[in-house]
Amino acid sequence: MPAKRRVTIALIAEEAGVSVPTVSKVINGRPEVAAETRRRVERLLHKHGYRRRVSQSDGPAGLIDLVFSEIESPWAMEIVRGAETAAREADAGIVVSVLHTHAGPGRDWLERIAARRTDGVVVVASKLSATLQGQLNARATPFAVVDPEGEPAPGVTSVGATNWNGGLAATRHLLELGHRRIGMIGGPADMLCSRARIDGYRAALETAGVTVAPELIRHGDFLVDSGRDHGHALLSLDDPPTAIFAGSDMQAFGVFEAARRRGLRVPDDLSVVGFDDLPLARSAWPPLTTVRQPLQDMAAAATRMVLAMGRGEPSQARRVELATELVVRESTAPPRAGRG
Amino acid sequence: MPAKRRVTIALIAEEAGVSVPTVSKVINGRPEVAAETRRRVERLLHKHGYRRRVSQSDGPAGLIDLVFSEIESPWAMEIVRGAETAAREADAGIVVSVLHTHAGPGRDWLERIAARRTDGVVVVASKLSATLQGQLNARATPFAVVDPEGEPAPGVTSVGATNWNGGLAATRHLLELGHRRIGMIGGPADMLCSRARIDGYRAALETAGVTVAPELIRHGDFLVDSGRDHGHALLSLDDPPTAIFAGSDMQAFGVFEAARRRGLRVPDDLSVVGFDDLPLARSAWPPLTTVRQPLQDMAAAATRMVLAMGRGEPSQARRVELATELVVRESTAPPRAGRG
Repeated sequence: MPAKRRVTIALIAEEAGVSVPTVSKVINGRPEVAAETRRRVERLLHKHGYRRRVSQSDGPAGLIDLVFSEIESPWAMEIVRGAETAAREADAGIVVSVLHTHAGPGRDWLERIAARRTDGVVVVASKLSATLQGQLNARATPFAVVDPEGEPAPGVTSVGATNWNGGLAATRHLLELGHRRIGMIGGPADMLCSRARIDGYRAALETAGVTVAPELIRHGDFLVDSGRDHGHALLSLDDPPTAIFAGSDMQAFGVFEAARRRGLRVPDDLSVVGFDDLPLARSAWPPLTTVRQPLQDMAAAATRMVLAMGRGEPSQARRVELATELVVRESTAPPRAGRG
Repeated sequence: MPAKRRVTIALIAEEAGVSVPTVSKVINGRPEVAAETRRRVERLLHKHGYRRRVSQSDGPAGLIDLVFSEIESPWAMEIVRGAETAAREADAGIVVSVLHTHAGPGRDWLERIAARRTDGVVVVASKLSATLQGQLNARATPFAVVDPEGEPAPGVTSVGATNWNGGLAATRHLLELGHRRIGMIGGPADMLCSRARIDGYRAALETAGVTVAPELIRHGDFLVDSGRDHGHALLSLDDPPTAIFAGSDMQAFGVFEAARRRGLRVPDDLSVVGFDDLPLARSAWPPLTTVRQPLQDMAAAATRMVLAMGRGEPSQARRVELATELVVRESTAPPRAGRG
């Protein structure tokens, strides 16, 4: 290796065979650069570990961007609380953005944040395109994902919960109560956290010798209405389930609604398990049996990892999974005699 | 009036009879200035309309600070959604801070935001001390309050809902159903929005010729647990209410819990009305009769007002109240025969 030379835009431009303004445009996320050129420049910026020169008076921006696809569930509130707490410890603030799309942050968002400074980005329950990863790397902006949607590229830092174990524990609890026909309403099929919960559900059934019935597995969007609609669909089957594992607390509340509209009582006629343990789970009626995931801790962990990367600390684990725990309340009971 | 002279720190220092560094300290919120001096300098900064000189390259920060005392209720999520939408329209971001105190933003918070730039501050359901108002005015940082706690100084821009009308409508609905003993669980006694709801409740009772019973009025904190605890207290009275106006949806859910724990059915044995119309109100059991306030619109209005002040637009209304609306669902019914 040659003696270490300071990485400048000029050096990158020379190696990429483009002009200095072109490299600047790539760094600043401007659209008027051909895709192939942009990728080549981004690769070189990343390879050389380019960092935007920061003037003496600058220092950290004191801001971490927290990016949601949607914030329709109280779930998002827990994420904001955790991230805000971790940022405050570092005297930083949290900038909350809502994309209103599940396609992940795009050029619009990038141009919006390029107009100001940020110390790092935590992307929540959303896609993170290879293009955006390249752009963030090119700007030396650290990032992490909480509950990735789709498959994040290898090397992307992500935080989640032990979803597979949670799915296993929820389903085993229902099996132990005597249920055999157990419905499952997951989240979006391309969210890893949802896939892991469904795989845990399958594993519990299979190790108990219970056949996995494809008609009992459905994909929702983690919100109340999808729990209600898929709950209705499951309860309309010729051989309906005696228990439903709802994959999120909000979906579980939707299943409650579907059951009531059909005159079924929870847990007497139908057992329901959620996932999350939002503050509302405790005061729901009946109080919801659910799998607790430490949402605030997850968001705080991702925020702290991004802050540490921004300080140039050596990157630690690439994937962190915090423990889940089954919390048994009053929405689960043995199936009625003659059913199950 | 003398010909307009550019307002400089030197001018302020001269008029206040202090040094230039002292004026700088006041502007930057540093603690080492005597209280009396600070107030004198702040008054002069405000009087002369001092604006911090902004270098050519600066322009707006692209950030609005949204400051909560707590974010424990999904109510806060609606505020974040509305503020984020309004900020995005102006290509700005929302920085969410949580104070974890009802004393309002203090020196800690001010020093944290002084380390970076902000285009304005929206304070939510929190106190706004005269000191902080002076400091924000001194820095020419525009601010507005959503649902002020305590009495904001005259001239402070604030946004709320027509709380008095909402309290009136909720209570009239219960009176029309035939209820006469109607409990009221307000929010914190020093929040204007709560006082207005209680006053609307009183007005409805008095105009209907029903005596206001002091033991039926209680003050909670708008959260589930306080609804449950005050619900228990009201239902333990020798002559308990047949209906409760809960003052927030979360408190209404707490009253649901208190009723269930006593074996009372809603609405057969007890009618319950909430306030907010959070997304969860619709899917609660029973679906909650409540007073809708347009939380997202309120937060968006406050954010747009602060952005407009930051652009130097002439300030419009100082107090904006958006309309509330009674939404009748299934948690209210006539009292049982022989009660009410």
